[in-house]
Amino acid sequence: MLDVVTFGETMVLMSHEISGPLRYVNRFMKQIGGAESNFAIGIVRLGHKAGWISKLGNDEFGKYIVSFIRGEGVDTSRVKFDSEAPTGVYFKERREWGESKVYYYRKGSAASRLTPMDLDFEYIGSAKYLHITGITPALSESCYQTTKEAIKIAKSKGVKIILDPNIRLKLWTKERAREVILELASKADIILPGVGEGEILVGENEPERIAEKFLELGIGIVVVKLGKQGAYYATASENKYVTGFHVERVVDTIGAGDGFAAGFVAGLLKGYSLEKAVRLANAVGAIVTTVIGDVEGLPTMDEVLVFMGEKDGIDR
Amino acid sequence: MLDVVTFGETMVLMSHEISGPLRYVNRFMKQIGGAESNFAIGIVRLGHKAGWISKLGNDEFGKYIVSFIRGEGVDTSRVKFDSEAPTGVYFKERREWGESKVYYYRKGSAASRLTPMDLDFEYIGSAKYLHITGITPALSESCYQTTKEAIKIAKSKGVKIILDPNIRLKLWTKERAREVILELASKADIILPGVGEGEILVGENEPERIAEKFLELGIGIVVVKLGKQGAYYATASENKYVTGFHVERVVDTIGAGDGFAAGFVAGLLKGYSLEKAVRLANAVGAIVTTVIGDVEGLPTMDEVLVFMGEKDGIDR
Amino acid sequence: MLDVVTFGETMVLMSHEISGPLRYVNRFMKQIGGAESNFAIGIVRLGHKAGWISKLGNDEFGKYIVSFIRGEGVDTSRVKFDSEAPTGVYFKERREWGESKVYYYRKGSAASRLTPMDLDFEYIGSAKYLHITGITPALSESCYQTTKEAIKIAKSKGVKIILDPNIRLKLWTKERAREVILELASKADIILPGVGEGEILVGENEPERIAEKFLELGIGIVVVKLGKQGAYYATASENKYVTGFHVERVVDTIGAGDGFAAGFVAGLLKGYSLEKAVRLANAVGAIVTTVIGDVEGLPTMDEVLVFMGEKDGIDR
Amino acid sequence: MLDVVTFGETMVLMSHEISGPLRYVNRFMKQIGGAESNFAIGIVRLGHKAGWISKLGNDEFGKYIVSFIRGEGVDTSRVKFDSEAPTGVYFKERREWGESKVYYYRKGSAASRLTPMDLDFEYIGSAKYLHITGITPALSESCYQTTKEAIKIAKSKGVKIILDPNIRLKLWTKERAREVILELASKADIILPGVGEGEILVGENEPERIAEKFLELGIGIVVVKLGKQGAYYATASENKYVTGFHVERVVDTIGAGDGFAAGFVAGLLKGYSLEKAVRLANAVGAIVTTVIGDVEGLPTMDEVLVFMGEKDGIDR
Amino acid sequence: MLDVVTFGETMVLMSHEISGPLRYVNRFMKQIGGAESNFAIGIVRLGHKAGWISKLGNDEFGKYIVSFIRGEGVDTSRVKFDSEAPTGVYFKERREWGESKVYYYRKGSAASRLTPMDLDFEYIGSAKYLHITGITPALSESCYQTTKEAIKIAKSKGVKIILDPNIRLKLWTKERAREVILELASKADIILPGVGEGEILVGENEPERIAEKFLELGIGIVVVKLGKQGAYYATASENKYVTGFHVERVVDTIGAGDGFAAGFVAGLLKGYSLEKAVRLANAVGAIVTTVIGDVEGLPTMDEVLVFMGEKDGIDR
Amino acid sequence: MLDVVTFGETMVLMSHEISGPLRYVNRFMKQIGGAESNFAIGIVRLGHKAGWISKLGNDEFGKYIVSFIRGEGVDTSRVKFDSEAPTGVYFKERREWGESKVYYYRKGSAASRLTPMDLDFEYIGSAKYLHITGITPALSESCYQTTKEAIKIAKSKGVKIILDPNIRLKLWTKERAREVILELASKADIILPGVGEGEILVGENEPERIAEKFLELGIGIVVVKLGKQGAYYATASENKYVTGFHVERVVDTIGAGDGFAAGFVAGLLKGYSLEKAVRLANAVGAIVTTVIGDVEGLPTMDEVLVFMGEKDGIDR
Repeated sequence: MLDVVTFGETMVLMSHEISGPLRYVNRFMKQIGGAESNFAIGIVRLGHKAGWISKLGNDEFGKYIVSFIRGEGVDTSRVKFDSEAPTGVYFKERREWGESKVYYYRKGSAASRLTPMDLDFEYIGSAKYLHITGITPALSESCYQTTKEAIKIAKSKGVKIILDPNIRLKLWTKERAREVILELASKADIILPGVGEGEILVGENEPERIAEKFLELGIGIVVVKLGKQGAYYATASENKYVTGFHVERVVDTIGAGDGFAAGFVAGLLKGYSLEKAVRLANAVGAIVTTVIGDVEGLPTMDEVLVFMGEKDGIDR
Repeated sequence: MLDVVTFGETMVLMSHEISGPLRYVNRFMKQIGGAESNFAIGIVRLGHKAGWISKLGNDEFGKYIVSFIRGEGVDTSRVKFDSEAPTGVYFKERREWGESKVYYYRKGSAASRLTPMDLDFEYIGSAKYLHITGITPALSESCYQTTKEAIKIAKSKGVKIILDPNIRLKLWTKERAREVILELASKADIILPGVGEGEILVGENEPERIAEKFLELGIGIVVVKLGKQGAYYATASENKYVTGFHVERVVDTIGAGDGFAAGFVAGLLKGYSLEKAVRLANAVGAIVTTVIGDVEGLPTMDEVLVFMGEKDGIDR
Repeated sequence: MLDVVTFGETMVLMSHEISGPLRYVNRFMKQIGGAESNFAIGIVRLGHKAGWISKLGNDEFGKYIVSFIRGEGVDTSRVKFDSEAPTGVYFKERREWGESKVYYYRKGSAASRLTPMDLDFEYIGSAKYLHITGITPALSESCYQTTKEAIKIAKSKGVKIILDPNIRLKLWTKERAREVILELASKADIILPGVGEGEILVGENEPERIAEKFLELGIGIVVVKLGKQGAYYATASENKYVTGFHVERVVDTIGAGDGFAAGFVAGLLKGYSLEKAVRLANAVGAIVTTVIGDVEGLPTMDEVLVFMGEKDGIDR
Repeated sequence: MLDVVTFGETMVLMSHEISGPLRYVNRFMKQIGGAESNFAIGIVRLGHKAGWISKLGNDEFGKYIVSFIRGEGVDTSRVKFDSEAPTGVYFKERREWGESKVYYYRKGSAASRLTPMDLDFEYIGSAKYLHITGITPALSESCYQTTKEAIKIAKSKGVKIILDPNIRLKLWTKERAREVILELASKADIILPGVGEGEILVGENEPERIAEKFLELGIGIVVVKLGKQGAYYATASENKYVTGFHVERVVDTIGAGDGFAAGFVAGLLKGYSLEKAVRLANAVGAIVTTVIGDVEGLPTMDEVLVFMGEKDGIDR
Repeated sequence: MLDVVTFGETMVLMSHEISGPLRYVNRFMKQIGGAESNFAIGIVRLGHKAGWISKLGNDEFGKYIVSFIRGEGVDTSRVKFDSEAPTGVYFKERREWGESKVYYYRKGSAASRLTPMDLDFEYIGSAKYLHITGITPALSESCYQTTKEAIKIAKSKGVKIILDPNIRLKLWTKERAREVILELASKADIILPGVGEGEILVGENEPERIAEKFLELGIGIVVVKLGKQGAYYATASENKYVTGFHVERVVDTIGAGDGFAAGFVAGLLKGYSLEKAVRLANAVGAIVTTVIGDVEGLPTMDEVLVFMGEKDGIDR
Repeated sequence: MLDVVTFGETMVLMSHEISGPLRYVNRFMKQIGGAESNFAIGIVRLGHKAGWISKLGNDEFGKYIVSFIRGEGVDTSRVKFDSEAPTGVYFKERREWGESKVYYYRKGSAASRLTPMDLDFEYIGSAKYLHITGITPALSESCYQTTKEAIKIAKSKGVKIILDPNIRLKLWTKERAREVILELASKADIILPGVGEGEILVGENEPERIAEKFLELGIGIVVVKLGKQGAYYATASENKYVTGFHVERVVDTIGAGDGFAAGFVAGLLKGYSLEKAVRLANAVGAIVTTVIGDVEGLPTMDEVLVFMGEKDGIDR
C-alpha cells in the first residue's frame, strides 16, 4: 500500500533568515529536518505514498514534528513517543561563503532509542522501497540493530532497498562509517553516494570508479551525486553523466541530497528510464537549494515540470 | 493643474521578506499595490503632479491606502469610501526561481464598484495625460463603463490618453481582454504593451510587428516593453531599440512595468525626445526591481540620474 | 469510527503580534481559523476522533490549511480542492480595548461552493455527533442546502446534532439568521447559544429564559455561554449556573466559543455529568483566550486538568 | 480655512515591541513623534482641519515624516526642507515599571533652525486656534523668536492661543523653562498644564491652586491634566473635576498629553461645554495609552464614542 | 580582589516574544542563562566584582556566551573551552497561565565536564564569597566532585559559602538532590532555599520551620524565598518576614531567584543589615520578572533605588 | 603588553535586514560601528591584543557599546563615561544598487569631547602599534588635539603609527581633511589610503603614484586599497599589486576597510612578509562584506585560512 517506507531521526531545526556567524544571529525560525523525513515528504509531494517510522520525545517539539510530517501527508501511524528522552534539535548556520554548518543537540534523543521492536513487519513489507540512510546506524547501537533488522524484513518481503550513505562525521569516525555502511550496502539494490562519500567508502573519487566499485559489491544501480554538476549513474548495462540544473541563487544547500533521492525514487515509481529519473532527481535537488529549510523547497510534480521547462508556468 | 490623472483599484499588498512557497511563509509585511497608483506615485516622485481617482472600502485598509498615497504627494481629493464593500487585498509570492505569483482578494471590492458618476469632468479635463490600464475595465461592468466614460471626457477636453494594457488573465479571458483593450486602444494616443500582450492583442510577437499593428490602429506612439532588454518604440516617423539597464540583483519584478510607464510619461512631460524618454523609462523600471514592493523602489529624478551614471552620487 | 464530524469553511488568518489599529500594523503572522475546524482540533486535542469536511482553493493557502488540520490529527480525507475558487482569508484586529474585529475575504471562496454532493453518507453516519454552526448556511445557498442535507443524514443514522449558532452579522441579516438557525435548531439535540444570540434567536436575554425557549423547541440540552462568567445549562430535568475560570491576561477572545463547544462535547464523550462537561467547557474556553490565534491555545486534557487545579503541573 | 495651526519639531521615533532596557533591545520599529504633529493628527482624526508648520532635513527621514503627516490629512504645505541639517531622531525606552524614557538626537536638527521667516501670516491668520508648546522655544534661540512671532501674528488676527507647556528638562533648565513659558502664557487664551508643570511654573501642586494662579495671569481657560485621574478645569465662572477613563492595559503613555489637547480642542470646535470637552480629552488621552507609538492610537470620533460607551461598537 | 566567585553551566537560551505553546512558536530570540552567571552578572550590576568559572564548547554558542558575560564585566579569565563537547542550550516556554517550562539540551555539554582541576586555588581564595548552586553537582559526577573541591578550597581560605539549592528535578531525583545538597549545606555559611526546596530538603513547608532546621545544621544565615510575598530570614539571634514588592506585570519569572541571591549578597557586601539586604534582594528579584530573559532585567543599584522609591527617577 | 592601541568614536549602528530606501524600512537592528573599534575587534579576532580608548555617553547605548567591545576581548579599561553628552548613533542604508549611505547622529557626542587628558601615557606606550584614523580629528578641536597628543606619546615611546585616512566628507571639508591628515601622515610609519583618498590627499589617482607621494613624505609603508581588485603596497625597496578575493554575494561593504587594516596589522604582528600581510588584509576585507554589520563578519584566523583555501573547512 505504501510506495516507500523510511525510518530515522527528525529534529527541530533552528534556522535563521540573515546569513552570518551564529554568534551574532539573534532571531531564529523553527523548522524541521531529518534526512529520512525530508525524503518521505519529497516522495509525497511528487505524488507517491510514504511512511515514516520514528521515535520522538513526548514534548512540544515532538508534537510539532509529528504534526508537520503528518500534515505533509506522510503516514506517521508508526511513530512512537518516548517520555524518557527529548526530541533532538539542530541549529543550521548559513553564511555567504563556505558551506552551512550544523550543530546537533541529539545525543540521547528519543530517536536514538529506536529498537528493532519499533519495526512493524507488515508495514515495511507493504512498501515497494525501503529507504535507509547512514545516519540512523550512527545514532546508537540499538539504531544500528534496527537498521539491520529493517533490511532483513525488506529482503524477506521482496522490498527493494535504497541506501543513501549520508555520512555524518559528527556522529562517528570515518572508519566506523565505512565499515557499517559497506555492510549495509552489501544488501542494497540502489546506492546514492556523493563523491566525498565514495572516497570514504571505496577509496575512489572519480564517479566512474566509485560506481564500478559499488557495482562490484553487487548493488544494481549506483547514482553518484555531483552537486551542481548533476549526477552519474551506472548499472551493469548502462551508465551516463546527467547534467544538473542551474539556479540563480542558492540559499541553502542542506536537504538537496534528500531531495535528489526523492526525485530519483519518484522517477522509478513513475516508470521513468534511469536517465530520466536522474534528471528529475537533479531538478528536485536544485529547487530545494533555493529555499531556506530542509523541506520547504521540495517541489510538487507540477513545479518540477515548470522548472525543467517541460510545462508552462505562466499565470498572469 | 494636474500633469496626469489616473483611476483604478489599489489593494493592500501582503508581501514577505524571505522568498519561498507561500504555504511556508509565516511573516508578512503590509504594503500597497495597484498599477494606476504605482504609476501616479512614480510620476510624483519624478517631479510632476498626479491625481488618482478610486473607491476604497471604509475600513482600516482603505484608510491605510489613502494615507499612503496622499502621503506620497498624489492628489487623492477624488477618492471615495464605500461602506458596503471592502478594500481589496493581494498576496505576492516571491521565489528564487520562476516569476512572482499574485493571489487576489478583490472580488466585489469597493473599487470594482466605481461608476461613471465617480468621475469629475473638470478634474480629468485639467490634466495633460489620462492614464488608463487594462485592469480597470476587467474589474466589473461598471468599471468598464467608467473607463469608457473617462476616455470620452479626456477626448472632449484634449487630454492625451496613455494606455497600459496590463492584461491580467486572472480577471478575464484572453478573448474578452483583446476585445475590450483593442476598443480602448482605438482611442489612445500612446500604448505601452509587453511582447506577450502584443501577441494576445494583435497576434504578433516581434516588437517591430507589434508596433506596426498598433500604429495601423491609429495610435501615435507605441512603446513595446522588452523587460531586461529594454524597449522598442515607434511612431509614424521614427523607431528604435533602446537597451535596458542591468541591475545586480533583481528582488521583485512586480511594479516594474508601472515604473516604466511613469518614467516614460515623466520624460514626455520634461520635453525629452522619445529615445531619451524611453531610456528614462528603462532606468525607472530597472530600479523598481531592486526593492521588495510595488512602489517602494520608485526613484526620484536625482536617484535615476545617479543610477544612469549622469550624476555623481558619492556621499562619503 | 469518528466521535464527531463537522463541516464548514476554514480560512487563512492573518493576525498580528502588536495590538493596535490594523492600519498601522505592518507585520502579520499566518495562522488558520474556522469555527468548525477550531472545534474539530479542540476535540482531537482532548483525546477524541474528529473528521472535518470542507472545500479549499487549490492554492498555496488551501494546501497550508489542509496540512495544518491534518497535522493536528483531524481526519481530512473528505476535504476537496477547488481549482476555480480561492481559499478564504481573514484578518483579525486586536486592540487593547474593545472587541477584536475581523475582516473577511471569503466571498466566492471554495468553501462557499460546498454542495450536498460533497457529503459522504457513511462518513457522517459513522460519527456519534454532528457539529453544525450558523456560519456555514450563511455562506451561500448551496451551503445552506448542504447543512440541511447533513442534518438529514445525521437524523437518519441516529447521529446526535450539536448546533453552535455562531451568528455572523457580516454574512447575513439578523432576520435571515434567526429564520435559518431556528429551522436548524428544530432538528438539533444540543444548542450552545451566547446571550446576544439568544436575544436574536428567541428574543430573550436572560439565560434561564433563553434556555426555556430552546427547550420548548424540543432541544434536549441547552448551554448558554456567559463569557468570563461561565455558562448556564438546562435540560428538561436539571439546570445550573457553572462559574467560569479567571485568567490573568486575555490576549485573544476569538475561538473561545469554539473551544467551549469542544470542551463540552469532549465532556459528553467522556461520560461526564452535564455540570462537569460545562466546567470542562469553561476551562477550555478560558485557556483559548490566553494565546493569539483561534486554535493555538486549545489545550490537551492534561493541560486542562492542570489549569483546573486537578492535576499537578510542577515540572522544575 | 484651518481649524488649528501648530508648529514645531517632529522626529523619527525608534520604538520597540518588547519592553525592557534599551541596551538589550535588538529590534526597533520606525514611527514618528512630535508634540505638535501628534496634536494636529489628533485634531484631524477627530474631524477638523489642521495645518502643521515645520522644517525637516532633506533626507530619507524628513521625507518619511512629511509623507506620514500629509498622509494623515494634516496640511503640510508650509513644511520646508533644509539640506544643511538632519531630521531629528528619538528613541523611546518602554519598561514594565517606571516611566518611559526618551533619548533625543535632535541637537542642531533642521527644526531647530526654524525662524520667524518660516511663518506665513495669512496661513496662521486663517485658523481658529494656534497651538503652541513649550518644546519649540526650548529648541533654539531662533525657535524661541519664531514662537513669539507666531503668537504676535495670532493676536493680530484674532486667532485664539492654546498653550501646552510640555516642559522637557532635557532641553532646558527649570528656571529658563519657567521664565519663557510664563512669558508665553501671558498671551495665551487656554493653558493645559500637568501637575508637575504647575509646580515648576507657578509653584503650586494642587489643581485648584494651579488653575487659580493661571487665571490670575489672565488666561481664560485652564485645564490641569491629572493623568489616569482625569482633569480639572477652571475659568472665571466655572470649575470642575472630570474623572478619567480606565483602560485595562496601558502600553505607552507618551503622546497621551497631546491626545488630551487634541480631544479638548476638538470639543471646543464642536461647540461642546467645557465639561464635555474635557471628558472627550480624557477619553482621547486614555485611548492613546493603549497603543505603542505617539500617534497610532489617536482615535476617530466614532472610536471615542464607542470607547465612552456613547455608541454601539458591536460588529460581529 | 573578587567579591564573589561562582562556577557552573551557562547555556544559550532560546526564548520567544509571543507567549504560548512552544509547538506554535516560530520565532525565537537568542539569550543566555545559567543560575551562576545570572548571579554573577547581578552582582556586577549592583557594583561589585564577580568571577565566573566554567567550561564552554569551542563553538559559536560558547563564544557568544563568553562574550556576553565578559561584556557584562564579570571576570571570565578562568573559563575554558572544550573542543570535544558542545555548549548547552535551553528553550524556555512562556505561557500566560501556569509556570514557564524549560527544555534542556545540556546532556554531555562542555560544562558537565568540569573537573576539580579546572579550579584555581588562588582565584577562589581571593574572593569574599563563594556562590554554589545545587545545579552544578547534578550535572555529572565530575561536577559533583568539583563542587566539593571548591568548597574545600573556600573553607581553607576563609571564603564564605552561599548555597542556593536551585533544585532541578529534570537533572536528578528528589532523593539524590536531598542527599547531595544537605551534604553541601553542612559546609555553607548562608543558604537561600525556596519553600518547595525546604520541603524536599528538610521536610518542612513553613518558613520558620525550614529556617530552624537549617540553623540546626549549623548554617549561620537562612533566607527562605517566598516569591511575590517576599522572604523570611533567620539567624541564631534574629528573624523576620520582609514583604516583597509588587510589579504590575510579571513577564518572566525565571532568573528571579538568582536576582534575589545577587541582591542579598550585594547587600551584605555593602554592609547592610540582614533586613535591608533581604529588602534589596526582594526588589532585585521583582525587577527581574518584568523583562523577558534571565539576566536582561537585572538592575543597577540606581535602578533598584528608584524602584524601591528611595531615589527620584524623574527624567522628563 | 598590548599589540595595538586605538582610540575614537563608536556609535550604535541602526541597520536593516531588507535592503531599500530608509524611508520605507520599518524594522531596524541594533549593532555597533566605529572604524577604530572595528579595527580593534578585528585584531583580537585574529589572535592579538588590542586596547580601545574612548568616551561614551552614560546611557543605555554607551553601556551597550562597552559591553559589546569588552565582550569581544578588546581591553576597554581606558573607556570613560560622560554624563553630559550622549552616545552617538548612526543609521546605515543598504540598497541593491549604489553604495550604502550613512546618516550620523553624533554631533556633540561624548566621544567628540575626548581630550588629551583622556590618554594614558603608559597604556599607549605599552603597545607595538598605535592605530589612528582621519575620523577622530574631524570630530572636534579637542579630538584633533587628542590625536596629535597620542602621536606624540607613541613617537616618544617608539610605538609604530598606522594611519588609516578614513576621510568622511560629512564631518569636514576636503581642504581641511587634506591639511590635517597630511599633518598626521608626516608622523606615520604606515598609511592605508584608498584611491579616492589618494586623490584628495596627494592629488593622484594611480596606485603607484599615490604610494610614491606618500613614500616621499617619509612614510615607510604605503598600502593603497583597491576594493575588490585587492591592494597595492610599496616601500622604499619593494612594491606589488596583490589581487583581491572574490565573494559570491557582497551584502554590506561598510567596515571592509577596517577589516583590511586589521588583517594587514595582524599579518605584521605574525611576522608575515608585506605581500603575505596584504593578502591576509584582502581576505579579511572580503569576508567582512559578506555579513550585515561593521564587525559581525570579522573572521578568526581559522576562518580566514579556510576562506583563502589554506585550511580544510570540511565539517560534515
